Amino acid sequence: MRAARFYGAGDIRVEEVPEPVIKPGQVKLKLAWCGICGTDLHYFQGFTTGAPSKTKAHYITKEKLPVVMGHEFSGTIVEIGPEVDSNKFAVGQNVAVEPLISCMESGCVPCSENTRNCCAHANFLGIAGWGGGLSEYITVNQAAVYPLPAGIPLEIGALVEPLAIAWHAVKRSAFRPGDKCLIMGSGPIGLMMSKVLQAKGAGWIGVSEPSEGRRQMALEQGASQVFDPRKDDVVAAVRALTANQGADVAFECAGIQATLDTAIKSLRSRGSFVNVAVWETPAQINLTYVLLKELVITGTIGYDRDHGEVMQALAEGKFQGLEKLVTKKIDLKDLVEGGIKCLISEKDTQIKILVAPHL
Amino acid sequence: MRAARFYGAGDIRVEEVPEPVIKPGQVKLKLAWCGICGTDLHYFQGFTTGAPSKTKAHYITKEKLPVVMGHEFSGTIVEIGPEVDSNKFAVGQNVAVEPLISCMESGCVPCSENTRNCCAHANFLGIAGWGGGLSEYITVNQAAVYPLPAGIPLEIGALVEPLAIAWHAVKRSAFRPGDKCLIMGSGPIGLMMSKVLQAKGAGWIGVSEPSEGRRQMALEQGASQVFDPRKDDVVAAVRALTANQGADVAFECAGIQATLDTAIKSLRSRGSFVNVAVWETPAQINLTYVLLKELVITGTIGYDRDHGEVMQALAEGKFQGLEKLVTKKIDLKDLVEGGIKCLISEKDTQIKILVAPHL
Repeated sequence: MRAARFYGAGDIRVEEVPEPVIKPGQVKLKLAWCGICGTDLHYFQGFTTGAPSKTKAHYITKEKLPVVMGHEFSGTIVEIGPEVDSNKFAVGQNVAVEPLISCMESGCVPCSENTRNCCAHANFLGIAGWGGGLSEYITVNQAAVYPLPAGIPLEIGALVEPLAIAWHAVKRSAFRPGDKCLIMGSGPIGLMMSKVLQAKGAGWIGVSEPSEGRRQMALEQGASQVFDPRKDDVVAAVRALTANQGADVAFECAGIQATLDTAIKSLRSRGSFVNVAVWETPAQINLTYVLLKELVITGTIGYDRDHGEVMQALAEGKFQGLEKLVTKKIDLKDLVEGGIKCLISEKDTQIKILVAPHL
Repeated sequence: MRAARFYGAGDIRVEEVPEPVIKPGQVKLKLAWCGICGTDLHYFQGFTTGAPSKTKAHYITKEKLPVVMGHEFSGTIVEIGPEVDSNKFAVGQNVAVEPLISCMESGCVPCSENTRNCCAHANFLGIAGWGGGLSEYITVNQAAVYPLPAGIPLEIGALVEPLAIAWHAVKRSAFRPGDKCLIMGSGPIGLMMSKVLQAKGAGWIGVSEPSEGRRQMALEQGASQVFDPRKDDVVAAVRALTANQGADVAFECAGIQATLDTAIKSLRSRGSFVNVAVWETPAQINLTYVLLKELVITGTIGYDRDHGEVMQALAEGKFQGLEKLVTKKIDLKDLVEGGIKCLISEKDTQIKILVAPHL
């Protein structure tokens, strides 16, 4: 079958690999769509933290490079392995997958406490090995497979993974319906945050984003107000809009010091700051300010079985306009030029590029 | 009457001032004991953030320097003003006082939401004006006055204020009975944290403190284990003691970068870091680590009507050995030499010095 494999920085090859063989407890998917994630771009650009190397295998998958890429994917079940629950899964079913993998060793506290995303070895299908969504087929343990609700197309299925990241981040925060929320950065994850906050009944959603195109997209996707942090005094604007109170929750999706400072200063007393972005260096935080306002800073990473709640919200029609987040669809053979390089060079206009392995 | 007044850095004078005149809604106290707080030392040493100056009055009290000092005090009611609830207060009653003052203006969100400690103008009796505990008498609004439970001596009454700081910090954290807790720094506030955690049923209390004398005091006051951060690998020790899990909650009572780093690294996944210390400069925080462990960082400052719960815990006998925290008792005339300078020079052995205005 065709698959895109990661060999190292700048080296992604679409090539023929053997089809995976189903094991007990697994289902086999014919992949429909796979989104390209910021992590895929980072890896292509050489920031490969957490990935296996050519010489060192990943702790869980035991795989070295090259590994099949892609972790935001949907597909159709084409085979059911032994020991799979036939009440839940059937051939022909359209599904999405939670790609999280963790060690599941008996001594691992996060794995034993249903916080698998905090396992020291936690990683993802499509990054650490065991196949990925940028290929024609994959075999996946049944516990990671979530059927798509009736009427939800496979393209939307490929968005469930980034939606689950945002869903989990909102759950980790102190968010309550009606809250005034600030999102720093309107890239794919910032936009997913906005969709989830709308689905959960936010009272006001402000988005701070320097890119004109991305601000426009934020407005089209339901933001109450957008700010250009290079021109606007975001802190003053948020205070003015909230009767000098400040936002209830801020989601940092940019990973930039100035953005963090603005978010912290925009919060109300006892407001909730959620760190979604990955940082390349330690950030400076004025802890005395955090103390005087009794702020709460919460870290969030990935998800742990949040996919089911996202599916439920999809079934209830709580997300509107998700299809507009898909700005391009390409064939797998165009992954690097039409996908990864396009996302790097056309940040203003591209949000989510979906890749079809079977076109 | 005699009172200690703060004139500026290095300039505290015990002198005669007029006795305060009771207003409607107030009670008048004959002061018994007043503790010297780290803030008093800071002010004496010239770190006077938040204090009024000689030329600029405090926003709430309208007072300029000099102001009467002392905010950790107990006393006996000697007069009841008009409009005071006679079912609650009577002459002869022993009480402690919550010295928090906030603007209480109709547009102030923290004041309207019972988070008065987060009011932008929040301050304290004995710092911002309206009298203080380092004098013979004070008049106080009845809402701030808490009767001491039967059998609780006035010396312990003077410890209720710092206990309320620790009580509030624990309430702001994710602490649950049985939790394994780490306290960074065993000065007066670190020790109060330990007492409150014991009262609330902590499963294990580790204390990291470089001073030999303070480590000894921490053990005498019920710490499960103490660490010398200059010699011990606190992170490794905490992990070894918690089945490689990490502490559930860490309370940062030192305000030092290395201490913060150790506390963060000692926490379990989704652990709770509570910032109690005031920082002189912004701290560096590795937010990617906070994210990967899904930690929660919580700011806490002072209290807002926590005194009642502390009184209840005192009444139920939940604090043991508090009297040993009082390492010295002095007369008001010895405040500077025997109190403030003694606390600065004898950090290893002095914890709480109580001052008596009437000796």
